[in-house]
Amino acid sequence: MLALVSSTDPRWVDVALGDLDAVLVDHLHCELKAASNATALVTRYVYHPRLVRELAELAREELSHVGQVHDELARRGLSARPPDEDAYARALRRALDDRKGEPLLDRLAVASIIEARSCERFQLLSLHAPTPALRAWYHDLFASEARHCRLFASLAEELHGEDRARERIRTLAEREAEILSKMPVLPRVH
Amino acid sequence: MLALVSSTDPRWVDVALGDLDAVLVDHLHCELKAASNATALVTRYVYHPRLVRELAELAREELSHVGQVHDELARRGLSARPPDEDAYARALRRALDDRKGEPLLDRLAVASIIEARSCERFQLLSLHAPTPALRAWYHDLFASEARHCRLFASLAEELHGEDRARERIRTLAEREAEILSKMPVLPRVH
Repeated sequence: MLALVSSTDPRWVDVALGDLDAVLVDHLHCELKAASNATALVTRYVYHPRLVRELAELAREELSHVGQVHDELARRGLSARPPDEDAYARALRRALDDRKGEPLLDRLAVASIIEARSCERFQLLSLHAPTPALRAWYHDLFASEARHCRLFASLAEELHGEDRARERIRTLAEREAEILSKMPVLPRVH
Repeated sequence: MLALVSSTDPRWVDVALGDLDAVLVDHLHCELKAASNATALVTRYVYHPRLVRELAELAREELSHVGQVHDELARRGLSARPPDEDAYARALRRALDDRKGEPLLDRLAVASIIEARSCERFQLLSLHAPTPALRAWYHDLFASEARHCRLFASLAEELHGEDRARERIRTLAEREAEILSKMPVLPRVH
């Protein structure tokens, strides 16, 4: 699956389907963080034309998912709270704190891996969610995250060279597998 | 003009048209800041259904303007740099640091006034920009900022009561007029 070097713990599907409300609340925050991160990248690297155009469009897509997840929460009579600390993303950022990277390359690598893991898990939900409507929706989200994952990897390759970008993403994928193996299996996207 | 209590210095149009490139670069950052601010408000106040829906949509619109401004810069062979410090927005936020407000009300008031001032200035550019295409574009942006200004004011009224919201926005409008009167007339949106 994309750049990942491990598969999600097989228990995760049951845990997620056992509390899909919690998955949706976490998902809302994932979409907001993705939109916010893409907007911050555009602001910081505003002199890269392709990055600006494509990440502004990616942020728009994430914000349209925010609306979709919010509607699904509303249908279930739920509302979200401000986000908890994101231990997974923080661990990923720290995993690259080794003086071998560059800030932009590392931010693109982290974004690519986060999208890859979301993509893998949305595919699981697209196969196992309880209703056809939810399965179809998760399938669309899976396809979208796959595009986003490739976009971040492709920007990393264009801006930092193919070999260097692939090596950095591979390094992070290995560390991500370790990080995830030490985290509890929770009803969250990550 | 909307909530504003002062009009832009009449010299501003000439200064702006004298360096429209600089106005466009500043404009790109204004759109990014607006998108980023709206996304941050959704994240922080994610339990207000109308705020989430409407500010996520507003952020999407700002990001589509980012693409438009970026295309106009590209047509002119220009690229932007990371933003300078935003003295205007910082002064507005400080202007409400008087213990009479509430964080959300004040953020909505600041956003409403920033949109109102952009709206006023885009209207000036819609009348005076050098080409019909630019005038039409600034007219669309003027209409969009007017909607955004009303949206922030309307959210403030819904969440904090009409009287309180109007009084706070009026207070800020008066301080904004003072702030602007002390700033140099520059080829920037603010």
